Amino acid sequence: MPDPHVNNPHLVTPSGKARARSLGVPFDGAPGANNAITDVPGVAVGYSTIIRGDGPLVIGEGPVRTGVTAILPRGREGFTTPVFAGGFSLNGAGEMTGLIWAEESGQCEGPITITNTHSCGTARDATIRWIVDNYPAELADAWGLPVAGETYDGDLNDINGFHVTPEHVFEALDNAASGPIELGSVGGGTGMICYDFKGGSGSASRRVGDYTVGAFVQANFGIRSELTIAGVPVGRHITGGEVRGKPQGSIIAIVATDAPLMPHQLKRLARRVGLGVGRSGSIAHNASGDIFLAFSTANRAAWAEGDDARDCAFLPNHALDPLFAAVVQATDEAIIDSLVANQTMTGRDGLTVMALPHDRLRKVLKQHGRLGG
Amino acid sequence: MPDPHVNNPHLVTPSGKARARSLGVPFDGAPGANNAITDVPGVAVGYSTIIRGDGPLVIGEGPVRTGVTAILPRGREGFTTPVFAGGFSLNGAGEMTGLIWAEESGQCEGPITITNTHSCGTARDATIRWIVDNYPAELADAWGLPVAGETYDGDLNDINGFHVTPEHVFEALDNAASGPIELGSVGGGTGMICYDFKGGSGSASRRVGDYTVGAFVQANFGIRSELTIAGVPVGRHITGGEVRGKPQGSIIAIVATDAPLMPHQLKRLARRVGLGVGRSGSIAHNASGDIFLAFSTANRAAWAEGDDARDCAFLPNHALDPLFAAVVQATDEAIIDSLVANQTMTGRDGLTVMALPHDRLRKVLKQHGRLGG
Amino acid sequence: MPDPHVNNPHLVTPSGKARARSLGVPFDGAPGANNAITDVPGVAVGYSTIIRGDGPLVIGEGPVRTGVTAILPRGREGFTTPVFAGGFSLNGAGEMTGLIWAEESGQCEGPITITNTHSCGTARDATIRWIVDNYPAELADAWGLPVAGETYDGDLNDINGFHVTPEHVFEALDNAASGPIELGSVGGGTGMICYDFKGGSGSASRRVGDYTVGAFVQANFGIRSELTIAGVPVGRHITGGEVRGKPQGSIIAIVATDAPLMPHQLKRLARRVGLGVGRSGSIAHNASGDIFLAFSTANRAAWAEGDDARDCAFLPNHALDPLFAAVVQATDEAIIDSLVANQTMTGRDGLTVMALPHDRLRKVLKQHGRLGG
Amino acid sequence: MPDPHVNNPHLVTPSGKARARSLGVPFDGAPGANNAITDVPGVAVGYSTIIRGDGPLVIGEGPVRTGVTAILPRGREGFTTPVFAGGFSLNGAGEMTGLIWAEESGQCEGPITITNTHSCGTARDATIRWIVDNYPAELADAWGLPVAGETYDGDLNDINGFHVTPEHVFEALDNAASGPIELGSVGGGTGMICYDFKGGSGSASRRVGDYTVGAFVQANFGIRSELTIAGVPVGRHITGGEVRGKPQGSIIAIVATDAPLMPHQLKRLARRVGLGVGRSGSIAHNASGDIFLAFSTANRAAWAEGDDARDCAFLPNHALDPLFAAVVQATDEAIIDSLVANQTMTGRDGLTVMALPHDRLRKVLKQHGRLGG
Repeated sequence: MPDPHVNNPHLVTPSGKARARSLGVPFDGAPGANNAITDVPGVAVGYSTIIRGDGPLVIGEGPVRTGVTAILPRGREGFTTPVFAGGFSLNGAGEMTGLIWAEESGQCEGPITITNTHSCGTARDATIRWIVDNYPAELADAWGLPVAGETYDGDLNDINGFHVTPEHVFEALDNAASGPIELGSVGGGTGMICYDFKGGSGSASRRVGDYTVGAFVQANFGIRSELTIAGVPVGRHITGGEVRGKPQGSIIAIVATDAPLMPHQLKRLARRVGLGVGRSGSIAHNASGDIFLAFSTANRAAWAEGDDARDCAFLPNHALDPLFAAVVQATDEAIIDSLVANQTMTGRDGLTVMALPHDRLRKVLKQHGRLGG
Repeated sequence: MPDPHVNNPHLVTPSGKARARSLGVPFDGAPGANNAITDVPGVAVGYSTIIRGDGPLVIGEGPVRTGVTAILPRGREGFTTPVFAGGFSLNGAGEMTGLIWAEESGQCEGPITITNTHSCGTARDATIRWIVDNYPAELADAWGLPVAGETYDGDLNDINGFHVTPEHVFEALDNAASGPIELGSVGGGTGMICYDFKGGSGSASRRVGDYTVGAFVQANFGIRSELTIAGVPVGRHITGGEVRGKPQGSIIAIVATDAPLMPHQLKRLARRVGLGVGRSGSIAHNASGDIFLAFSTANRAAWAEGDDARDCAFLPNHALDPLFAAVVQATDEAIIDSLVANQTMTGRDGLTVMALPHDRLRKVLKQHGRLGG
Repeated sequence: MPDPHVNNPHLVTPSGKARARSLGVPFDGAPGANNAITDVPGVAVGYSTIIRGDGPLVIGEGPVRTGVTAILPRGREGFTTPVFAGGFSLNGAGEMTGLIWAEESGQCEGPITITNTHSCGTARDATIRWIVDNYPAELADAWGLPVAGETYDGDLNDINGFHVTPEHVFEALDNAASGPIELGSVGGGTGMICYDFKGGSGSASRRVGDYTVGAFVQANFGIRSELTIAGVPVGRHITGGEVRGKPQGSIIAIVATDAPLMPHQLKRLARRVGLGVGRSGSIAHNASGDIFLAFSTANRAAWAEGDDARDCAFLPNHALDPLFAAVVQATDEAIIDSLVANQTMTGRDGLTVMALPHDRLRKVLKQHGRLGG
Repeated sequence: MPDPHVNNPHLVTPSGKARARSLGVPFDGAPGANNAITDVPGVAVGYSTIIRGDGPLVIGEGPVRTGVTAILPRGREGFTTPVFAGGFSLNGAGEMTGLIWAEESGQCEGPITITNTHSCGTARDATIRWIVDNYPAELADAWGLPVAGETYDGDLNDINGFHVTPEHVFEALDNAASGPIELGSVGGGTGMICYDFKGGSGSASRRVGDYTVGAFVQANFGIRSELTIAGVPVGRHITGGEVRGKPQGSIIAIVATDAPLMPHQLKRLARRVGLGVGRSGSIAHNASGDIFLAFSTANRAAWAEGDDARDCAFLPNHALDPLFAAVVQATDEAIIDSLVANQTMTGRDGLTVMALPHDRLRKVLKQHGRLGG
C-alpha cells in the first residue's frame, strides 16, 4: 500500500519531514497546492544552509549553524520589476533593511533575504551585487535598497564568526525556485529556536477565492510555557529540554499574495501577521524583532516606463476580511510547521535544542479535543 | 450559608452580574483587588447610561441604547495633571481624538471618554467644557485636546438621533469613582455587540510585582464563528441568535498602569492590546476601529512648573515582558467579561441581541478540558 | 481706465482685499484660474463667520470671533463618494479627526471642516448629522468618521463660550461653492493670528501639466521675528504690535489635487506641506498643531459597488517631483495670503491684532531685491 | 599680521578650507567652540576617505571616490552605553539601519556609520564586528542593531565596485575623535553632490543655554535652481557646471545634544531637521533619502544594571522651542558648509563636479542685502 504522505506537500516536506497537518493538527482555511508561499504564482524561495564543525565555540571557526534564505517575489525572471509592499513592526528588536523605502514608495525592489543578525548587512549588500551582476546593462546605474531581515542564532551558531559570505547569499538567490519548499533548519532558519524547541523556516498558504495568500516565517521566538497550538496550551504540557534562559529571538515574516492590493492595504495585511503570531502564544517579548512585510505580485504593469499615469487594480477595503483571515491562518500554520518539520540539533558548545516531539503533541491535542484527521 | 460570590468583585459586578471567573473560565496571571482598571491607584471610571423607548426606529426619538464612559487617569482631584501615554491603532476604522497629541507630546491630558460613533465629538468638546468649568481659574486660558473614543451602536440604538448631550458627558465625568465597576451594557458600552453576543464595557487587571496593569474595553467587534475563549473555539459551538450580517463594530481599549514608563514604552504596551484582542479570535476586520491607548499614572512630578529639567522614573526595556503579558491577559479577560457580565437586550426595531449563555459556555469549555475552578 | 485688479482673483479676493501677488511678492510656479484650492475641479469651500460683541470677555457671551470652514472634496453633489487621502503631522499639538481612518483606509469620506480648538468635536458630529440629513436613504445606516481640524482663537475669541453650533457647521457646508474664495478673517480663520499679524484663511494653487494642486490653510502660528517672505526676513524689519507673548497656535493645511495618486503618495504630498510652512520661517513650535491632509479627486470609480477588483489610475513615484514643488509653493503662498488679504481686528478684552502692513512689506522686499512686478 | 582665520574653527576646517562664516554668510544662533557636532561633549567623529584611480569606469577597479564616516555618541570610551534616540524620514528613498530598533526601544546602541548606498550593509556588519572585537568579554553574547546610513555616490564613484571593506569601517571608527572636524569631501561624504555643486560632509552646532545641539550631514541632494542660502535664491544666479540630469541623491543627518530628552522628544528634534533642510531650498525629491536621527548623550545612568526603575532627566515639552530652532539652524549651516568647505572633484569617467564658487556666492548675497561680516 502506497504511503499517502509521499508526494503530498501538505503532509511532508521535499526531504521527507512530516508537516503539522500529517499529525492531525487542525488548521482553518484551504491551503494551496504546496501549502507554501510558493503557491503565489511567481514567488521563488532559495536556501543556503551552512553547517560546519562541532564542540566548543572558537570565534571565527565555529561551530557554524546558520544560512541565508532568499525570496524572489517575481522569481528569477522578474526581479527587475518591483512589487507593491507594506510592512509592520510588532516589536522592533530586529532589522529589516528596505522598510523605510517600502513605507515611502509603497514598493519592494528585487529579492528579499533573511539571515542571522550579524550578517544582515552582508545579505543586503550582496543582494545589490547580485542584481548588478544579473541586471540588464541599461539599468546598471540604478541604486538598490533591498529588503534583508534577520533573527539571532548565536545560541547554536558562532554568530560573531561572521560565516555568511556574499557567496552564500548568491547561492540562496541562485537556488530560488517555485514548487514545494523545504522547512525547518534550512537557509536562514538553520540555527533558530522557537518556543524553546528547534525552530527555523516555516511556510503555509491559503486560497481566498481566485487569490492565494502565502506566508513564510523565520521563527526564532517565544518561551516554552507560552506555546499554544490550535488553542491548546501545549507548552505547559510538553516541558523539558528548555535551553534559553530568557525570552530571546525574533520572527521575520514575509506575506505574498497575487490579490491586487495597494501599498496601504498591504500594510494592513502585514499588521495581521501579528495576530497570527499571537495565536501560538506570543506576547512579543521585548527582545524579539517581530517585523513583517507583505507584498502583492499583481499589477506588474504599474512599473511601465514613462511618466504618464497608469492603472493598478485593487480590491476594495470592504473585501479584505477573507485576506486578513488568510494571513492570520497562514502565519500561524507556518510557525507551527517550523517546529513540526524539524529535527533536534546540536551546535555551539554542544548545546542541543530538541525538536517538538510529535507523539507528545498529538497526545496533548487529543486530551483537549483538538486532534483532527 | 453565605454566598461566596457576594462582595467578591472577581466573581460578580456591583449590580450582581456574574463575571467570567465565577463560571470557571481559566485566566492566567493574578488580578488586583477589583480585577478592574480601577485597581491602578487613582484611576476612576464613571458612566452615563441612556436607555429610552422601544419598537420601530424613529430618528431623533429612539429607541435609545447608548451612553458615555469616562475614565479619569488621576481621578477627580488630579485631572489637571497629565499622564504619560502612548497609543496604537490595530485597525483604524474608528476615532480616538487626542491621539495625535499623545503621539507628539507623549501625554494625555484630562479625562478620557468613550461613547457612540456619532457622538464622539460631543464627548470631546463637552470634556473641554467640563474642564473649563472645573479648572482652577489661573488655567482658564489653556487649550484642550482630550481623548474621546467611540464604537458603533446603530444596530440597537437610534445613533442618528444624536441622543448624547453634553449633560450626559458631565454625568459620566461627575460619577467617576474608584473601586469595583459595573460591566456589560453600561455607559458607552450600552448598545454594543461583540462576537454577535451582547457586548459592551469590560475590565480586568493584573498584578506585576509592585505594579498593577488594568485594561478597560468597549467591546463591539467580531463575528460569532471567531469567538475563542481560553483557546477553545466557543463560537463554533454556541450558534444561534446572530444579528449582524457582516463584521462590524470596533474595540476601544484603555490600559492603565502605575508602573513608571516613558511614552514610547506605553506605545509598546498599547501594541500588546492587539495580541490580547487576538486571543478571543479577532482578525481585526476591515470595518473595526481597534484603537488603543496606554497611560501611566506614575511620575506626577514630571509636570512640575518651570522650564528646568526634571526627572521621570522608568523601567528598563528589558524588564517590560511581565507588563506585556499582563496587558495581553487583562485585555483578553476584559473582553470575555464584557460578554459574560451582560444580559440580552432588545433595541431598535425590536432587534434582540442575546447574551452569551453561561451554561453553554461552561459545557463547551468542559468538553475541551479547559473548565477551571 | 479700468482697474486691472477688478475681477482678477490672483490679485484681489471676492470682497476686494488685495492678495500678495498684487503687492509684487514673488512666487514660483503657475497658479490656476482662482489661485485657490477651488481650482481643483469639484472642490468647494464654504464659510460660516461668527463675529459678535466687543469689550471685556464674558464667558458664554463674547466677544465672539470665530467660525467654521467647510471643504467638500467633490462638492455638494459628490459627497457620498470618498477621495483617496493621506495625512502628516509635523507637530501634533492639535486635532484632526478622521486621520486614523485616513491612515488605515487611504481615504477621506465626506466634507472636511475646520474651526476653533474647542468646537472641533461639534464640527465633526454636525458633519455626520448633515450627511445623515442629506444622504440617499439607502445609505442611512452608514457610519461616519469625518475630518475636522482646529486651531486656537482664544486670544480674540471667547473660545470657552462654545459659540459654534451645529447650525454654523451646516451653514458652512451649505455655502460651499467652487470659484474664487474669500481669504483672511473668514470662516474657521476668523479669529486667528499668524506671525503675530492677523492671520486666518489662505489658499493658492499651482498648475502642473494637466493637473492642479491647491492648498488651503487656516494659519494661526509663528512668532513675528521668524516671518520670512520670499526668503526675506520680513518679521525682523516689521516690528510692533505683537500680541502673543509666546509661540502659540497652529496651522491646518488641506491639499487637493486632481492628479491621480494612491494614498501613500498623498501622504508624500502631505509631508511636503511642512516644507511649505517652513518657507515662511516656522520651526514648528511645541504648542503648534501643524497637521496636514492631502486628497485626490481622481479615481471616482474606485468606489464602485461590489467586492470585485477595480482599477485606479496613479502617477509613478518618479513623476511626483513637480507635484511636490507645487505643494511647497502653494502652501507658502496660501500662508502669505492669509496675512496680506486681511485686516486689523479687535476682539476679546479689546485686544487688537494688526494686519501685515502692505507698504512696509513692499519696502522690505525692495530693500532685499525681492520685489517683483 | 596674523591671519585671524588660523585656528578659528568657525572660519576654517582643520585642513584649512574656508567655512561659510568666513565668507560672511549670515546664520542665526550662537555656535559652540568648533561649530560642529563634536561640540556636544563626548561625541567623536572619524573618517575613512577612499580616493583611488582616474578615468573611465571599470567596475571593481575604479575610479574610487567614497568613504566611511563614524559618529560615536559617547566616544570611544563610552560605546557600550546606548543613547536615547529618535528618527524621522522626510523622504525614505534611502537606508538607515537601526531605525526600527530606535523607534521601538528609544535608543541607539554603539557607533553610527554613514557610507555609500551599496556599502551600507558592510558598514553595519563591520560595526558589529568592531564592537565584538572591542567589547568587554562579559558582553560577548550581546546582539547588535547598529545605525548605518547611506547616500549615493555613483556619479563620481565606482559604486558597483564595492570598494568599502570592513577595514575602512574600522579605520573610521578607530579615527573618531572630538574637537574640530574636517568637512567637505571626506569620509562617507567623499563622492557626494549637493545642489549640483560638490557636496559631502557638513556640521555645525548651536548653544542653547547650558546645552549644545550639533548637526552632522552627509549632503547629496537637490538641484541647482533650488539652492537658497540665507533666503537668497543663489542657485538661480550661480549657474553652470550642473552634472546631474535629474534630482538624485539624499541627505543623512545626525543630530546630537546633551540636553536631557526622552526618545519621543528626540523624534521631535529629528522632525525639525526637515525644516532645516528646507531652508536651502529642498522639496525632498522623490529619489532623495532624507533620513534623520537625533540622540541625547544625557542620562547615562539610564542604562544602569538591573530590572529596577531608574530615573531619567528631561526637559518639559514647553521648553523645547529653543532646541527646535537650534536644530533648524545647525542643519541649515551644516549643509551650506558641506558646499563651501569643499573643492572641485573629478571622478568616474572624468566627470568634474565643481565646488560652490566663494566669490560668486558673496556677490549674490551682497546684491540681496544678505552679506554679513
